[in-house]
Amino acid sequence: MSGQAKLVRNNDGPAAPLYTSPREFRAGCRSGQLSLLTRNQCPGYVQCALVALPKALAFEFMVFCQRNQKACPVLEVTEPGQYEPKRSAPGADLRTDLPLYSVYRNGVRVEDVADVTRLWRDDLVGFLIGSNTSCDLALQRAGVQTERYRWPLTTSVPTEPAGAFHGPLVVTMRWLTPQELITATQLTSRFPFNHGAPIHVGDPAVLGCDLAHPLTGSPPPPMPAGLIPTFWACSVTPQVVAVAAKVEFMITSAPTYGFITDLETDKVGIP
Amino acid sequence: MSGQAKLVRNNDGPAAPLYTSPREFRAGCRSGQLSLLTRNQCPGYVQCALVALPKALAFEFMVFCQRNQKACPVLEVTEPGQYEPKRSAPGADLRTDLPLYSVYRNGVRVEDVADVTRLWRDDLVGFLIGSNTSCDLALQRAGVQTERYRWPLTTSVPTEPAGAFHGPLVVTMRWLTPQELITATQLTSRFPFNHGAPIHVGDPAVLGCDLAHPLTGSPPPPMPAGLIPTFWACSVTPQVVAVAAKVEFMITSAPTYGFITDLETDKVGIP
Repeated sequence: MSGQAKLVRNNDGPAAPLYTSPREFRAGCRSGQLSLLTRNQCPGYVQCALVALPKALAFEFMVFCQRNQKACPVLEVTEPGQYEPKRSAPGADLRTDLPLYSVYRNGVRVEDVADVTRLWRDDLVGFLIGSNTSCDLALQRAGVQTERYRWPLTTSVPTEPAGAFHGPLVVTMRWLTPQELITATQLTSRFPFNHGAPIHVGDPAVLGCDLAHPLTGSPPPPMPAGLIPTFWACSVTPQVVAVAAKVEFMITSAPTYGFITDLETDKVGIP
Repeated sequence: MSGQAKLVRNNDGPAAPLYTSPREFRAGCRSGQLSLLTRNQCPGYVQCALVALPKALAFEFMVFCQRNQKACPVLEVTEPGQYEPKRSAPGADLRTDLPLYSVYRNGVRVEDVADVTRLWRDDLVGFLIGSNTSCDLALQRAGVQTERYRWPLTTSVPTEPAGAFHGPLVVTMRWLTPQELITATQLTSRFPFNHGAPIHVGDPAVLGCDLAHPLTGSPPPPMPAGLIPTFWACSVTPQVVAVAAKVEFMITSAPTYGFITDLETDKVGIP
Protein backbone atom coordinates (compact mmCIF):
# COMPACT_ATOMS: atom_id res chain seq x y z
CA MET A 1 0.00 0.00 0.00
CA SER A 2 1.57 3.29 -1.04
CA GLY A 3 1.22 6.59 0.81
CA GLN A 4 -0.86 7.88 -2.09
CA ALA A 5 -4.61 7.80 -1.48
CA LYS A 6 -6.07 5.56 -4.16
CA LEU A 7 -9.32 3.82 -3.68
CA VAL A 8 -12.36 2.51 -5.46
CA ARG A 9 -14.16 4.23 -8.24
CA ASN A 10 -16.89 6.49 -6.94
CA ASN A 11 -18.28 8.18 -10.02
CA ASP A 12 -20.97 5.68 -10.85
CA GLY A 13 -24.57 6.42 -10.14
CA PRO A 14 -26.11 5.00 -6.97
CA ALA A 15 -29.15 2.97 -6.31
CA ALA A 16 -31.43 4.24 -3.57
CA PRO A 17 -29.54 4.56 -0.30
CA LEU A 18 -29.36 1.35 1.70
CA TYR A 19 -29.40 3.36 4.91
CA THR A 20 -31.35 6.47 5.85
CA SER A 21 -30.54 6.43 9.58
CA PRO A 22 -27.00 7.42 10.62
CA ARG A 23 -27.37 5.31 13.75
CA GLU A 24 -28.15 2.20 11.70
CA PHE A 25 -25.39 2.94 9.23
CA ARG A 26 -22.88 3.25 12.06
CA ALA A 27 -24.18 0.05 13.69
CA GLY A 28 -23.66 -1.71 10.37
CA CYS A 29 -20.08 -0.50 10.24
CA ARG A 30 -19.56 -1.56 13.85
CA SER A 31 -20.78 -5.06 13.11
CA GLY A 32 -18.02 -5.36 10.56
CA GLN A 33 -20.48 -6.34 7.82
CA LEU A 34 -20.50 -3.06 5.99
CA SER A 35 -18.08 -1.60 3.49
CA LEU A 36 -20.24 0.89 1.62
CA LEU A 37 -19.10 4.17 0.21
CA THR A 38 -20.48 6.81 2.53
CA ARG A 39 -21.57 9.32 -0.03
CA ASN A 40 -24.87 7.82 -1.07
CA GLN A 41 -25.97 6.78 2.41
CA CYS A 42 -28.13 8.69 4.90
CA PRO A 43 -28.98 11.60 2.61
CA GLY A 44 -29.37 14.91 4.41
CA TYR A 45 -26.99 14.18 7.27
CA VAL A 46 -23.62 15.83 7.75
CA GLN A 47 -20.76 13.59 6.66
CA CYS A 48 -17.22 14.09 7.88
CA ALA A 49 -13.69 13.02 7.23
CA LEU A 50 -11.91 11.77 10.37
CA VAL A 51 -8.35 12.69 11.23
CA ALA A 52 -7.00 11.29 14.53
CA LEU A 53 -3.56 12.48 15.60
CA PRO A 54 -1.42 12.41 18.75
CA LYS A 55 -2.21 15.24 21.17
CA ALA A 56 1.32 16.59 20.73
CA LEU A 57 0.41 17.53 17.14
CA ALA A 58 -3.20 18.55 17.73
CA PHE A 59 -2.72 22.28 18.17
CA GLU A 60 -0.52 22.62 15.08
CA PHE A 61 -3.02 20.61 13.09
CA MET A 62 -5.91 22.73 14.32
CA VAL A 63 -4.06 25.90 13.36
CA PHE A 64 -3.50 24.34 9.93
CA CYS A 65 -7.24 23.77 9.66
CA GLN A 66 -7.94 27.38 10.66
CA ARG A 67 -5.52 28.67 8.02
CA ASN A 68 -7.15 26.48 5.39
CA GLN A 69 -10.74 26.79 6.53
CA LYS A 70 -12.33 26.16 3.15
CA ALA A 71 -10.69 22.74 2.89
CA CYS A 72 -10.64 21.85 6.60
CA PRO A 73 -13.83 23.00 8.36
CA VAL A 74 -13.56 21.49 11.85
CA LEU A 75 -16.96 20.34 13.12
CA GLU A 76 -15.84 18.56 16.27
CA VAL A 77 -12.69 17.94 18.29
CA THR A 78 -12.72 15.05 20.78
CA GLU A 79 -10.94 15.07 24.11
CA PRO A 80 -7.56 13.26 24.04
CA GLY A 81 -8.12 9.49 24.04
CA GLN A 82 -11.89 9.82 23.70
CA TYR A 83 -13.55 8.14 20.74
CA GLU A 84 -17.13 9.29 21.27
CA PRO A 85 -18.05 12.37 19.22
CA LYS A 86 -20.40 13.70 21.88
CA ARG A 87 -21.57 16.72 19.98
CA SER A 88 -22.26 15.40 16.51
CA ALA A 89 -23.19 11.76 17.26
CA PRO A 90 -23.65 10.91 20.95
CA GLY A 91 -23.08 7.21 21.58
CA ALA A 92 -21.07 6.66 18.41
CA ASP A 93 -17.57 5.17 18.45
CA LEU A 94 -14.99 6.67 16.11
CA ARG A 95 -12.93 3.44 16.27
CA THR A 96 -15.58 1.23 14.69
CA ASP A 97 -18.36 3.30 13.13
CA LEU A 98 -16.75 4.18 9.82
CA PRO A 99 -16.72 1.72 6.90
CA LEU A 100 -12.98 1.94 6.31
CA TYR A 101 -9.95 3.58 7.89
CA SER A 102 -6.46 4.33 6.64
CA VAL A 103 -3.58 3.97 9.07
CA TYR A 104 -0.42 6.01 8.54
CA ARG A 105 2.98 5.67 10.16
CA ASN A 106 5.60 8.34 9.49
CA GLY A 107 3.60 9.51 6.52
CA VAL A 108 3.23 6.09 4.93
CA ARG A 109 -0.20 4.56 4.55
CA VAL A 110 0.51 1.14 6.01
CA GLU A 111 -2.94 -0.41 5.98
CA ASP A 112 -6.65 0.12 5.39
CA VAL A 113 -8.80 -1.55 8.05
CA ALA A 114 -12.46 -1.68 9.04
CA ASP A 115 -11.84 -1.32 12.79
CA VAL A 116 -9.14 0.63 14.63
CA THR A 117 -10.02 -0.37 18.21
CA ARG A 118 -6.73 -2.21 18.64
CA LEU A 119 -4.79 0.77 17.25
CA TRP A 120 -6.45 3.55 19.24
CA ARG A 121 -4.18 5.35 21.70
CA ASP A 122 -4.87 7.37 24.84
CA ASP A 123 -3.24 10.41 23.30
CA LEU A 124 -5.23 10.52 20.08
CA VAL A 125 -7.36 13.58 19.37
CA GLY A 126 -10.09 13.08 16.77
CA PHE A 127 -10.99 15.84 14.33
CA LEU A 128 -14.20 15.63 12.32
CA ILE A 129 -13.96 17.71 9.17
CA GLY A 130 -17.09 18.56 7.19
CA SER A 131 -17.49 17.02 3.74
CA ASN A 132 -19.22 18.42 0.71
CA THR A 133 -21.14 15.16 0.41
CA SER A 134 -23.18 16.62 3.29
CA CYS A 135 -24.86 18.93 0.80
CA ASP A 136 -25.84 16.32 -1.80
CA LEU A 137 -29.49 16.01 -0.81
CA ALA A 138 -29.95 19.78 -0.65
CA LEU A 139 -28.44 20.04 -4.12
CA GLN A 140 -30.56 17.23 -5.52
CA ARG A 141 -33.74 18.83 -4.18
CA ALA A 142 -32.73 21.99 -6.01
CA GLY A 143 -32.18 20.15 -9.27
CA VAL A 144 -28.40 19.85 -9.20
CA GLN A 145 -27.18 16.35 -10.07
CA THR A 146 -24.55 15.05 -7.69
CA GLU A 147 -23.81 11.56 -8.94
CA ARG A 148 -21.97 11.89 -12.20
CA TYR A 149 -19.03 14.04 -13.25
CA ARG A 150 -17.37 14.37 -9.87
CA TRP A 151 -13.68 13.81 -9.07
CA PRO A 152 -11.39 14.49 -6.13
CA LEU A 153 -8.18 15.94 -7.56
CA THR A 154 -4.88 17.11 -6.18
CA THR A 155 -3.79 20.55 -7.34
CA SER A 156 -0.60 22.56 -7.46
CA VAL A 157 -2.12 25.17 -5.12
CA PRO A 158 -0.19 25.10 -1.84
CA THR A 159 -2.12 25.17 1.41
CA GLU A 160 -1.00 27.67 4.00
CA PRO A 161 1.34 25.74 6.29
CA ALA A 162 1.26 25.49 10.07
CA GLY A 163 4.20 23.84 11.80
CA ALA A 164 4.95 20.56 10.07
CA PHE A 165 1.69 20.58 8.13
CA HIS A 166 1.98 21.60 4.51
CA GLY A 167 1.07 20.29 1.10
CA PRO A 168 -1.24 20.78 -1.86
CA LEU A 169 -4.91 21.64 -1.77
CA VAL A 170 -7.26 18.85 -2.81
CA VAL A 171 -10.43 19.84 -4.64
CA THR A 172 -13.63 18.24 -5.81
CA MET A 173 -14.25 19.02 -9.46
CA ARG A 174 -17.82 18.77 -10.72
CA TRP A 175 -19.11 19.40 -14.21
CA LEU A 176 -22.32 21.39 -14.02
CA THR A 177 -24.72 23.13 -16.36
CA PRO A 178 -24.80 26.94 -16.05
CA GLN A 179 -28.03 26.80 -14.02
CA GLU A 180 -26.63 24.04 -11.81
CA LEU A 181 -23.51 26.12 -11.25
CA ILE A 182 -25.58 29.11 -10.13
CA THR A 183 -27.86 27.07 -7.88
CA ALA A 184 -24.95 25.11 -6.40
CA THR A 185 -23.08 28.32 -5.61
CA GLN A 186 -26.11 29.78 -3.87
CA LEU A 187 -26.82 26.63 -1.92
CA THR A 188 -23.34 25.61 -0.83
CA SER A 189 -22.67 29.16 0.38
CA ARG A 190 -25.09 28.41 3.18
CA PHE A 191 -22.87 25.57 4.43
CA PRO A 192 -19.48 27.13 5.22
CA PHE A 193 -18.60 24.20 7.48
CA ASN A 194 -19.05 21.74 4.65
CA HIS A 195 -16.67 23.62 2.32
CA GLY A 196 -19.10 26.40 1.44
CA ALA A 197 -19.03 28.05 -1.97
CA PRO A 198 -16.87 26.99 -4.91
CA ILE A 199 -13.28 28.19 -4.96
CA HIS A 200 -12.95 28.24 -8.76
CA VAL A 201 -15.00 27.95 -11.93
CA GLY A 202 -13.63 27.06 -15.36
CA ASP A 203 -10.20 25.91 -16.47
CA PRO A 204 -8.74 23.15 -14.23
CA ALA A 205 -5.24 24.24 -15.29
CA VAL A 206 -5.61 27.41 -13.24
CA LEU A 207 -5.46 25.24 -10.11
CA GLY A 208 -2.90 22.87 -11.58
CA CYS A 209 -5.30 19.95 -11.25
CA ASP A 210 -3.83 16.50 -11.70
CA LEU A 211 -6.54 15.29 -14.07
CA ALA A 212 -4.66 12.12 -14.95
CA HIS A 213 -4.68 10.83 -11.38
CA PRO A 214 -7.93 11.51 -9.52
CA LEU A 215 -7.77 10.34 -5.90
CA THR A 216 -10.62 7.96 -6.58
CA GLY A 217 -11.95 6.63 -9.86
CA SER A 218 -10.80 6.96 -13.44
CA PRO A 219 -9.59 10.15 -15.12
CA PRO A 220 -12.35 12.37 -16.53
CA PRO A 221 -13.50 11.59 -20.08
CA PRO A 222 -13.82 14.39 -22.65
CA MET A 223 -16.25 16.95 -21.19
CA PRO A 224 -19.69 17.09 -22.83
CA ALA A 225 -20.56 20.43 -24.42
CA GLY A 226 -22.46 22.88 -22.21
CA LEU A 227 -20.93 21.89 -18.89
CA ILE A 228 -18.64 24.03 -16.75
CA PRO A 229 -16.00 22.65 -14.38
CA THR A 230 -16.70 23.89 -10.86
CA PHE A 231 -14.34 23.33 -7.93
CA TRP A 232 -14.83 23.02 -4.18
CA ALA A 233 -12.14 22.60 -1.54
CA CYS A 234 -12.11 18.98 -0.37
CA SER A 235 -11.76 17.34 3.04
CA VAL A 236 -9.19 14.88 1.72
CA THR A 237 -6.77 17.83 1.95
CA PRO A 238 -5.83 17.23 5.61
CA GLN A 239 -5.00 13.59 4.87
CA VAL A 240 -2.69 14.51 2.03
CA VAL A 241 -1.10 17.20 4.18
CA ALA A 242 -0.59 14.90 7.16
CA VAL A 243 1.13 12.44 4.83
CA ALA A 244 3.44 15.19 3.58
CA ALA A 245 4.18 16.09 7.22
CA LYS A 246 5.25 12.46 7.84
CA VAL A 247 3.16 12.39 11.00
CA GLU A 248 4.44 9.67 13.33
CA PHE A 249 1.01 8.07 13.70
CA MET A 250 -2.36 8.95 12.25
CA ILE A 251 -5.68 7.31 11.59
CA THR A 252 -8.06 8.77 9.03
CA SER A 253 -11.23 7.81 7.29
CA ALA A 254 -10.29 6.24 3.98
CA PRO A 255 -11.23 8.66 1.19
CA THR A 256 -14.92 8.25 0.23
CA TYR A 257 -15.53 6.26 3.47
CA GLY A 258 -16.49 8.95 5.96
CA PHE A 259 -18.23 9.30 9.28
CA ILE A 260 -21.97 10.03 9.22
CA THR A 261 -23.12 12.26 12.09
CA ASP A 262 -26.59 12.78 13.56
CA LEU A 263 -26.51 16.43 12.44
CA GLU A 264 -28.99 17.36 9.74
CA THR A 265 -27.30 19.43 7.06
CA ASP A 266 -30.26 21.75 6.58
CA LYS A 267 -30.20 22.68 10.27
CA VAL A 268 -26.50 23.25 10.72
CA GLY A 269 -25.64 25.59 7.89
CA ILE A 270 -23.64 27.65 10.34
CA PRO A 271 -23.20 25.72 13.61
CA MET B 1 -10.06 47.64 38.43
CA SER B 2 -12.51 44.79 38.82
CA GLY B 3 -12.57 41.64 36.71
CA GLN B 4 -15.85 42.83 35.19
CA ALA B 5 -15.52 44.41 31.77
CA LYS B 6 -16.92 47.93 32.12
CA LEU B 7 -15.92 50.64 29.79
CA VAL B 8 -17.06 53.82 28.16
CA ARG B 9 -20.45 54.37 26.66
CA ASN B 10 -20.55 53.41 23.01
CA ASN B 11 -24.16 53.92 21.99
CA ASP B 12 -23.93 57.48 20.79
CA GLY B 13 -23.89 58.24 17.12
CA PRO B 14 -20.55 58.85 15.47
CA ALA B 15 -19.23 61.67 13.42
CA ALA B 16 -17.57 60.69 10.16
CA PRO B 17 -14.74 58.24 10.81
CA LEU B 18 -11.42 59.89 11.65
CA TYR B 19 -9.59 57.06 9.93
CA THR B 20 -10.42 55.18 6.75
CA SER B 21 -7.07 53.36 6.42
CA PRO B 22 -6.38 50.49 8.84
CA ARG B 23 -2.66 51.09 8.43
CA GLU B 24 -3.01 54.72 9.55
CA PHE B 25 -5.32 53.80 12.38
CA ARG B 26 -2.82 51.25 13.65
CA ALA B 27 0.04 53.74 13.28
CA GLY B 28 -1.98 56.17 15.39
CA CYS B 29 -2.42 53.55 18.08
CA ARG B 30 1.27 52.72 17.91
CA SER B 31 2.24 56.37 18.40
CA GLY B 32 0.34 56.31 21.68
CA GLN B 33 -1.75 59.33 20.67
CA LEU B 34 -4.94 57.46 19.90
CA SER B 35 -7.63 56.15 22.19
CA LEU B 36 -10.63 55.94 19.86
CA LEU B 37 -13.35 53.35 20.01
CA THR B 38 -12.69 51.04 17.10
CA ARG B 39 -16.21 50.59 15.91
CA ASN B 40 -16.64 53.73 13.87
CA GLN B 41 -13.18 53.74 12.33
CA CYS B 42 -12.07 52.29 8.99
CA PRO B 43 -15.53 51.29 7.77
CA GLY B 44 -15.58 48.16 5.64
CA TYR B 45 -12.54 46.48 7.18
CA VAL B 46 -12.67 43.39 9.37
CA GLN B 47 -12.35 44.21 13.05
CA CYS B 48 -11.28 41.65 15.61
CA ALA B 49 -11.07 41.08 19.30
CA LEU B 50 -7.60 39.98 20.45
CA VAL B 51 -7.01 37.22 22.99
CA ALA B 52 -3.36 36.38 23.76
CA LEU B 53 -2.74 33.39 26.00
CA PRO B 54 0.21 31.20 27.00
CA LYS B 55 0.91 28.40 24.53
CA ALA B 56 0.13 25.82 27.22
CA LEU B 57 -3.52 26.91 27.08
CA ALA B 58 -3.76 27.61 23.36
CA PHE B 59 -5.12 24.25 22.20
CA GLU B 60 -7.84 24.15 24.87
CA PHE B 61 -8.80 27.70 24.04
CA MET B 62 -8.94 26.93 20.34
CA VAL B 63 -11.17 23.93 21.00
CA PHE B 64 -13.37 26.23 23.07
CA CYS B 65 -13.61 28.58 20.09
CA GLN B 66 -14.52 25.67 17.79
CA ARG B 67 -17.27 24.54 20.15
CA ASN B 68 -18.64 28.06 20.33
CA GLN B 69 -18.06 29.07 16.75
CA LYS B 70 -20.83 31.66 16.56
CA ALA B 71 -19.30 33.67 19.40
CA CYS B 72 -15.62 32.90 18.74
CA PRO B 73 -14.86 32.82 15.00
CA VAL B 74 -11.07 32.54 14.81
CA LEU B 75 -9.65 34.56 11.93
CA GLU B 76 -5.97 34.19 12.70
CA VAL B 77 -3.66 32.39 15.13
CA THR B 78 -0.12 33.71 15.51
CA GLU B 79 2.92 31.55 16.10
CA PRO B 80 3.97 31.39 19.77
CA GLY B 81 5.72 34.62 20.75
CA GLN B 82 4.99 36.27 17.43
CA TYR B 83 3.10 39.56 17.47
CA GLU B 84 2.76 40.15 13.74
CA PRO B 85 -0.59 38.98 12.31
CA LYS B 86 0.94 38.02 8.97
CA ARG B 87 -2.28 36.91 7.32
CA SER B 88 -4.71 39.66 8.23
CA ALA B 89 -2.38 42.65 8.61
CA PRO B 90 1.22 42.10 7.48
CA GLY B 91 3.58 44.49 9.23
CA ALA B 92 1.23 45.21 12.12
CA ASP B 93 2.23 44.71 15.75
CA LEU B 94 -0.36 43.22 18.08
CA ARG B 95 1.50 44.70 21.10
CA THR B 96 0.97 48.32 20.09
CA ASP B 97 -1.58 48.63 17.30
CA LEU B 98 -4.79 48.47 19.33
CA PRO B 99 -6.15 51.54 21.13
CA LEU B 100 -6.50 49.83 24.50
CA TYR B 101 -5.68 46.45 26.07
CA SER B 102 -6.89 44.70 29.19
CA VAL B 103 -4.37 42.65 31.17
CA TYR B 104 -5.58 39.75 33.29
CA ARG B 105 -3.74 37.75 35.94
CA ASN B 106 -5.42 34.67 37.37
CA GLY B 107 -8.74 35.86 36.02
CA VAL B 108 -8.52 39.36 37.48
CA ARG B 109 -8.36 42.36 35.19
CA VAL B 110 -5.40 44.12 36.69
CA GLU B 111 -4.92 47.01 34.29
CA ASP B 112 -5.96 48.59 31.01
CA VAL B 113 -2.99 49.89 29.02
CA ALA B 114 -2.34 51.34 25.57
CA ASP B 115 0.82 49.29 24.89
CA VAL B 116 1.70 45.75 25.98
CA THR B 117 5.22 45.56 24.59
CA ARG B 118 6.74 45.27 28.06
CA LEU B 119 4.24 42.55 28.99
CA TRP B 120 4.52 40.37 25.88
CA ARG B 121 5.97 36.91 26.47
CA ASP B 122 7.70 34.42 24.21
CA ASP B 123 5.01 31.84 24.89
CA LEU B 124 1.99 33.97 24.01
CA VAL B 125 -0.25 32.86 21.17
CA GLY B 126 -2.47 35.56 19.72
CA PHE B 127 -6.00 34.78 18.55
CA LEU B 128 -7.89 37.26 16.39
CA ILE B 129 -11.62 36.75 16.69
CA GLY B 130 -13.98 38.36 14.19
CA SER B 131 -16.30 41.10 15.43
CA ASN B 132 -19.75 42.02 14.23
CA THR B 133 -18.59 45.61 13.89
CA SER B 134 -16.91 44.30 10.72
CA CYS B 135 -20.33 44.26 9.05
CA ASP B 136 -21.43 47.79 9.95
CA LEU B 137 -20.68 49.39 6.58
CA ALA B 138 -22.37 46.57 4.69
CA LEU B 139 -25.43 47.01 6.91
CA GLN B 140 -25.46 50.79 6.54
CA ARG B 141 -25.29 50.52 2.75
CA ALA B 142 -28.34 48.26 2.93
CA GLY B 143 -30.27 50.74 5.06
CA VAL B 144 -29.76 49.15 8.48
CA GLN B 145 -28.77 51.66 11.14
CA THR B 146 -25.86 50.49 13.25
CA GLU B 147 -25.23 53.38 15.63
CA ARG B 148 -28.12 53.50 18.05
CA TYR B 149 -29.85 50.83 20.10
CA ARG B 150 -26.94 48.45 20.44
CA TRP B 151 -25.69 46.85 23.65
CA PRO B 152 -23.26 44.04 24.57
CA LEU B 153 -24.99 41.94 27.23
CA THR B 154 -24.09 38.91 29.27
CA THR B 155 -26.69 36.13 29.23
CA SER B 156 -27.52 33.06 31.29
CA VAL B 157 -26.85 30.81 28.27
CA PRO B 158 -23.79 28.67 29.03
CA THR B 159 -21.13 28.26 26.40
CA GLU B 160 -19.99 24.73 25.65
CA PRO B 161 -16.89 24.24 27.81
CA ALA B 162 -13.46 23.00 26.74
CA GLY B 163 -10.93 22.22 29.45
CA ALA B 164 -10.83 25.12 31.90
CA PHE B 165 -12.78 27.41 29.60
CA HIS B 166 -16.42 27.88 30.49
CA GLY B 167 -18.84 30.70 31.18
CA PRO B 168 -21.81 32.57 29.81
CA LEU B 169 -22.42 33.61 26.24
CA VAL B 170 -22.16 37.34 25.55
CA VAL B 171 -24.47 38.78 22.91
CA THR B 172 -24.96 42.03 21.06
CA MET B 173 -28.57 43.15 21.25
CA ARG B 174 -29.80 45.54 18.59
CA TRP B 175 -33.25 47.03 18.23
CA LEU B 176 -34.28 46.92 14.59
CA THR B 177 -37.33 47.60 12.47
CA PRO B 178 -38.89 44.52 10.85
CA GLN B 179 -37.31 45.39 7.49
CA GLU B 180 -33.94 46.02 9.14
CA LEU B 181 -34.21 42.66 10.91
CA ILE B 182 -34.83 40.86 7.62
CA THR B 183 -32.05 42.67 5.77
CA ALA B 184 -29.61 42.27 8.65
CA THR B 185 -30.31 38.53 8.81
CA GLN B 186 -29.72 38.15 5.09
CA LEU B 187 -26.56 40.20 5.14
CA THR B 188 -24.86 38.92 8.26
CA SER B 189 -25.46 35.32 7.14
CA ARG B 190 -22.83 35.98 4.51
CA PHE B 191 -20.20 36.66 7.19
CA PRO B 192 -20.01 33.51 9.34
CA PHE B 193 -16.56 34.51 10.58
CA ASN B 194 -17.89 37.77 11.95
CA HIS B 195 -20.65 36.07 13.97
CA GLY B 196 -22.93 35.37 11.04
CA ALA B 197 -26.71 35.38 11.41
CA PRO B 198 -28.61 36.33 14.57
CA ILE B 199 -28.98 33.70 17.27
CA HIS B 200 -32.29 34.99 18.62
CA VAL B 201 -35.08 37.45 17.84
CA GLY B 202 -37.55 38.82 20.39
CA ASP B 203 -37.69 38.54 24.16
CA PRO B 204 -34.32 39.14 25.86
CA ALA B 205 -35.51 37.04 28.80
CA VAL B 206 -35.26 33.89 26.66
CA LEU B 207 -31.49 34.32 26.73
CA GLY B 208 -31.45 35.55 30.32
CA CYS B 209 -29.92 38.85 29.24
CA ASP B 210 -28.55 41.04 32.00
CA LEU B 211 -30.22 44.23 30.77
CA ALA B 212 -29.35 46.17 33.91
CA HIS B 213 -25.59 45.79 33.37
CA PRO B 214 -24.54 46.07 29.73
CA LEU B 215 -20.82 45.50 29.28
CA THR B 216 -20.47 48.99 27.89
CA GLY B 217 -22.79 51.96 28.19
CA SER B 218 -25.99 52.57 30.09
CA PRO B 219 -28.92 50.14 30.39
CA PRO B 220 -31.41 50.26 27.53
CA PRO B 221 -34.23 52.83 27.83
CA PRO B 222 -37.85 51.78 27.19
CA MET B 223 -37.97 50.34 23.67
CA PRO B 224 -39.70 52.51 21.07
CA ALA B 225 -42.77 50.93 19.47
CA GLY B 226 -42.17 49.02 16.23
CA LEU B 227 -38.68 47.77 17.01
CA ILE B 228 -37.66 44.14 17.55
CA PRO B 229 -34.74 43.04 19.72
CA THR B 230 -32.30 41.02 17.63
CA PHE B 231 -29.30 39.20 19.07
CA TRP B 232 -25.92 38.21 17.70
CA ALA B 233 -23.20 36.22 19.45
CA CYS B 234 -20.44 38.60 20.54
CA SER B 235 -16.66 38.39 20.51
CA VAL B 236 -16.45 39.62 24.10
CA THR B 237 -17.49 36.04 25.01
CA PRO B 238 -13.93 34.63 25.02
CA GLN B 239 -12.76 37.40 27.37
CA VAL B 240 -15.53 36.68 29.85
CA VAL B 241 -14.82 32.96 29.59
CA ALA B 242 -11.07 33.36 30.07
CA VAL B 243 -11.81 35.40 33.20
CA ALA B 244 -14.05 32.62 34.52
CA ALA B 245 -11.24 30.13 33.79
CA LYS B 246 -8.88 32.24 35.93
CA VAL B 247 -6.23 32.06 33.24
CA GLU B 248 -2.80 32.67 34.75
CA PHE B 249 -1.94 35.44 32.26
CA MET B 250 -3.88 36.91 29.39
CA ILE B 251 -3.91 40.04 27.29
CA THR B 252 -7.04 41.03 25.38
CA SER B 253 -8.32 43.98 23.47
CA ALA B 254 -10.40 46.08 25.86
CA PRO B 255 -14.07 45.71 24.87
CA THR B 256 -14.99 48.16 22.08
CA TYR B 257 -11.26 48.72 21.39
CA GLY B 258 -10.42 46.10 18.79
CA PHE B 259 -7.81 45.36 16.17
CA ILE B 260 -8.49 46.59 12.64
CA THR B 261 -7.13 44.26 9.94
CA ASP B 262 -6.36 44.93 6.30
CA LEU B 263 -9.07 42.45 5.26
CA GLU B 264 -12.06 43.96 3.49
CA THR B 265 -15.27 42.55 4.94
CA ASP B 266 -17.02 42.35 1.58
CA LYS B 267 -14.22 40.15 0.22
CA VAL B 268 -13.83 37.74 3.13
CA GLY B 269 -17.35 36.57 3.78
CA ILE B 270 -16.06 33.03 4.03
CA PRO B 271 -12.25 33.03 4.20
